[in-house]
Amino acid sequence: MKTYTKYLTLKTAKKIEIVNITSQVEEAVEKSQVKEGLCLVNSMHITSSVFINDEEEGLKEDFKKWLEKLAPDGVEKYKHNLTGEDNAYAHLRRTVMGREVVVAITNGNLDFGPWEQIFYAEFDGQRSKRILIKIIGE
Amino acid sequence: MKTYTKYLTLKTAKKIEIVNITSQVEEAVEKSQVKEGLCLVNSMHITSSVFINDEEEGLKEDFKKWLEKLAPDGVEKYKHNLTGEDNAYAHLRRTVMGREVVVAITNGNLDFGPWEQIFYAEFDGQRSKRILIKIIGE
Amino acid sequence: MKTYTKYLTLKTAKKIEIVNITSQVEEAVEKSQVKEGLCLVNSMHITSSVFINDEEEGLKEDFKKWLEKLAPDGVEKYKHNLTGEDNAYAHLRRTVMGREVVVAITNGNLDFGPWEQIFYAEFDGQRSKRILIKIIGE
Repeated sequence: MKTYTKYLTLKTAKKIEIVNITSQVEEAVEKSQVKEGLCLVNSMHITSSVFINDEEEGLKEDFKKWLEKLAPDGVEKYKHNLTGEDNAYAHLRRTVMGREVVVAITNGNLDFGPWEQIFYAEFDGQRSKRILIKIIGE
Repeated sequence: MKTYTKYLTLKTAKKIEIVNITSQVEEAVEKSQVKEGLCLVNSMHITSSVFINDEEEGLKEDFKKWLEKLAPDGVEKYKHNLTGEDNAYAHLRRTVMGREVVVAITNGNLDFGPWEQIFYAEFDGQRSKRILIKIIGE
Repeated sequence: MKTYTKYLTLKTAKKIEIVNITSQVEEAVEKSQVKEGLCLVNSMHITSSVFINDEEEGLKEDFKKWLEKLAPDGVEKYKHNLTGEDNAYAHLRRTVMGREVVVAITNGNLDFGPWEQIFYAEFDGQRSKRILIKIIGE
């Protein structure tokens, strides 16, 4: 049995941003030398997400607008912000988009359907954040 | 260590449909001969979901109606649809319901609570789609 | 390869409650003697969730209030309740918050970012419920 651990670090230019990280995950799978197994990819922060969807700019804008509606910003709206924070909305939006994905590795590759791509969604950015890639298999 | 990979193919009769796939996953677990491990089940498409909930027809209707409210249909509502697509709503609904489930295998069986069942939720159906089952363990 | 299975049982005092279970999961990881691997934690019930976020009381209140808005209570609102149940809202809220988390184990510990904590979210409590912890690795 093999295991492999990789931490990605990134800092988004904007406060809210969706970044395609598929190629970094593919690189980790290659380095792991795992041919059959599972690959976990998760945000290590609680105001950002890792999710799988389509690489299409319009859709990314749709996601951002939709999340604004589902979990509006506004310091006065949330009790969490009484602690001095202003990012309660980010905790909620990350919950909708999810913390993590688990992807199968088959024949040494991410076993993806035709349009699957892995994204990091930042909801409270402009500072250094980490993503964890953990691979187990053989 | 054992690993096992199975692809299910299905084509729903309706555009939006929720299908119970528990027995197919149980069959894969049996064929894998894994007694202790993890079973990943994911949609290989970005407009459909795999999730765990209750086998109850009324609840399936509730899910569909609720998702209509959370992520309404409407070509003109979404930038993604400017690409010629009409399924932006399906990308959003799949996000609420989730891409994948990870289920424990204990003593050779899915280690489920009393009511847990695995479902495929299609939001842009009437065409051939695939589900991936990946099992690792011993 | 090692595997380890642990069932937690809990009964919340309130119908809707969010409980921090991080220390119980850490204990399971220690007992498993797994140094590198994956840890699945899932609710075994379909009206409750396991999720990762921040240990902050105001935020827990924000989550509860937000879910009331996204998936309102009300027996008459849902077809599921025609079966005699009154908890359709709980099935929906659990879907937003998620059934499970998968956490990496590195150097014998949960490989967490600075604020990550594991919670059980009960939406139909005041009765005995179970959480499953499954660990695989080496």
